[in-house]
Amino acid sequence: MAKQLNGAGLRGQVAGKTALSTVGKSGSGLTYRGYDVKDLANKCQFEEVAYLILKGKLPTQTELDSYKEKLRGMRGLPDALKEVLERIPKDAHPMDVLRTGCSMLGNLEMEKSFDEQQEVTDRMLACFPSIICYWYRFSHDGVRVEVETDDDSIGGHFLHMLHGEKPRELHEQVMHVSLILYAEHEFNASTFTARVCASTLSDMHSCVTGAIGSLRGPLHGGANEAAMEMIEGFTSADDAEEKMMGMLERKEKIMGFGHAVYADSDPRNGIIKEWSEKLAADVGDTVLYPVSVRCEEVMWREKKLFCNADFFHASAYNFMGIPTKLFTPIFVMSRLTGWAAHVMEQRSDNRIIRPSADYTGEELRPVPSIADRA
Amino acid sequence: MAKQLNGAGLRGQVAGKTALSTVGKSGSGLTYRGYDVKDLANKCQFEEVAYLILKGKLPTQTELDSYKEKLRGMRGLPDALKEVLERIPKDAHPMDVLRTGCSMLGNLEMEKSFDEQQEVTDRMLACFPSIICYWYRFSHDGVRVEVETDDDSIGGHFLHMLHGEKPRELHEQVMHVSLILYAEHEFNASTFTARVCASTLSDMHSCVTGAIGSLRGPLHGGANEAAMEMIEGFTSADDAEEKMMGMLERKEKIMGFGHAVYADSDPRNGIIKEWSEKLAADVGDTVLYPVSVRCEEVMWREKKLFCNADFFHASAYNFMGIPTKLFTPIFVMSRLTGWAAHVMEQRSDNRIIRPSADYTGEELRPVPSIADRA
Repeated sequence: MAKQLNGAGLRGQVAGKTALSTVGKSGSGLTYRGYDVKDLANKCQFEEVAYLILKGKLPTQTELDSYKEKLRGMRGLPDALKEVLERIPKDAHPMDVLRTGCSMLGNLEMEKSFDEQQEVTDRMLACFPSIICYWYRFSHDGVRVEVETDDDSIGGHFLHMLHGEKPRELHEQVMHVSLILYAEHEFNASTFTARVCASTLSDMHSCVTGAIGSLRGPLHGGANEAAMEMIEGFTSADDAEEKMMGMLERKEKIMGFGHAVYADSDPRNGIIKEWSEKLAADVGDTVLYPVSVRCEEVMWREKKLFCNADFFHASAYNFMGIPTKLFTPIFVMSRLTGWAAHVMEQRSDNRIIRPSADYTGEELRPVPSIADRA
Repeated sequence: MAKQLNGAGLRGQVAGKTALSTVGKSGSGLTYRGYDVKDLANKCQFEEVAYLILKGKLPTQTELDSYKEKLRGMRGLPDALKEVLERIPKDAHPMDVLRTGCSMLGNLEMEKSFDEQQEVTDRMLACFPSIICYWYRFSHDGVRVEVETDDDSIGGHFLHMLHGEKPRELHEQVMHVSLILYAEHEFNASTFTARVCASTLSDMHSCVTGAIGSLRGPLHGGANEAAMEMIEGFTSADDAEEKMMGMLERKEKIMGFGHAVYADSDPRNGIIKEWSEKLAADVGDTVLYPVSVRCEEVMWREKKLFCNADFFHASAYNFMGIPTKLFTPIFVMSRLTGWAAHVMEQRSDNRIIRPSADYTGEELRPVPSIADRA
């Protein structure tokens, strides 16, 4: 159920219409075009959900096969883009890399008219994993990775480039679930950024570039990375409890809990938690998963704060050997679908988004000559 | 005086507080920190106004001299950034170039803490002209232009690199005025983009990159370019009148007139119009300026629409030999001050900007198995 919120940050203020999702509505915490995200995560591949969000309906088998085939054919990167990625240092922020890669792509493959919006979106869906992995492998391992793999899915393509080998079925399956869970979330800050940009009738690359910049912020996209950094500092469930109690006492910010819109629970948590448990069993983990469960218990007991989508994503990604700094870029690979669908929706019934401000500054005053200033 | 506006696009809805400017308040159409923009444009250099907007007070002579000296020392571009710019084709959109240049700069010179916000802003103010001119001269003339000139001002630096020679005093003066007029404008769409991004506590380069993408949109930053394309198609004032009447009859969109916030006039128009007239006299123009004046008369007579800041900017820039496609990048060089100041203001009293949406989509429904879909 949605909290009643007022005040700063436009909280509770309606900024537009959407047919894409509901967040925090009673009965089904998160729906994409009317389908409960839990139902989708149980039954669908990510590409099905991307198709749903972008085109408005779930695909038939034939439509899904041909959509996936199309995306597989769009994984390559232009030489000029590879050369740009090679010039970005190893210690850069991976979100800055994606932001720059997306922006550069807009120079090389400009969206010349809105008729091309589905095409440029599909292109981004297919090649964002290439962009992030090409930079990561080049800057960290000195390898110019082959980006045109024949993996079945977007998640598989990503894992293959990252690890240099075909991913296991379990891992590809978890990637489907994870990408589905992060795909769309109404007027969150990055999506709203994309819509504000779209409202000037700017191009798709500008909208997505802007959204990446917003998702980069630690109040938005970085929560699963922050959760990882915390839990990997705990050696056991008891150690986690002791240290968390200290953090709570010192009023330190603990990431991965609570939510701006959900009041009672995040519907995505139960799903990813279950997969994290399966992955833990698969790798024989006896620390990270029990630590995560204890953190959940402590936060609920002490603060009545629930895990959001990010918390168990941390351990799940870690069990698949994904470096922590690539967690938020995976969020981009997924949320891109929501961003693009919101851009298309904004374009279809547009008015430029231009709010007002309360003025709190100086009253009208004359400009003093430069000699008279202090 | 501000119009009373309602409905879509958050029009008339308060999205936050600002002490930076007032737009459309009775008595003084546009103020920066309490000073009328006309007063500032008459008495100040752009760097004085940038200092005012960013630091809250008009500088003394000593402060201004040292600020300008500091900016002069920050004009150089890192090799990696030059190499990126060299890979952007000639037919790219110049706003995409700036967006990419700004994003790339964020990889090379990341804002590591908000303590650095003034420093990274000054750096962008100093080097954005270098970015746009380096790409323009390389892609169009095959020249690797020297970006570290000793020109006194930001406008002079830009004109020098563009034309390959020291600008005349009149032109440098017009650049001061133009950059002052465009420097700040409350919660317009690009500035609001920057604030939404800032509200996630993202870095300055992300905020400015996003804002550039929004300013790129034809409903926002491109109006002076569109105005130029229109007026250069008119051979005389009479020809302009005849063709405009036809455009009005066919209900074609005419750019450079009217404003989302100002109801009666745009306070910036009178100022730039005066300078356009001076430049016309200086170059012996007998077409473009009279054409522009006639357009203004026709639009007022027929539609009661006034020229906004963009309309006479078109002829003014043209008289200084500035290619039309660089008009909006000049807007960026100026508005960057407002964007950065709004980011700083948002950071100083932040809550993540996360509005709500009216849901207009499908009711809750079960996911059909893929065999059962149509």
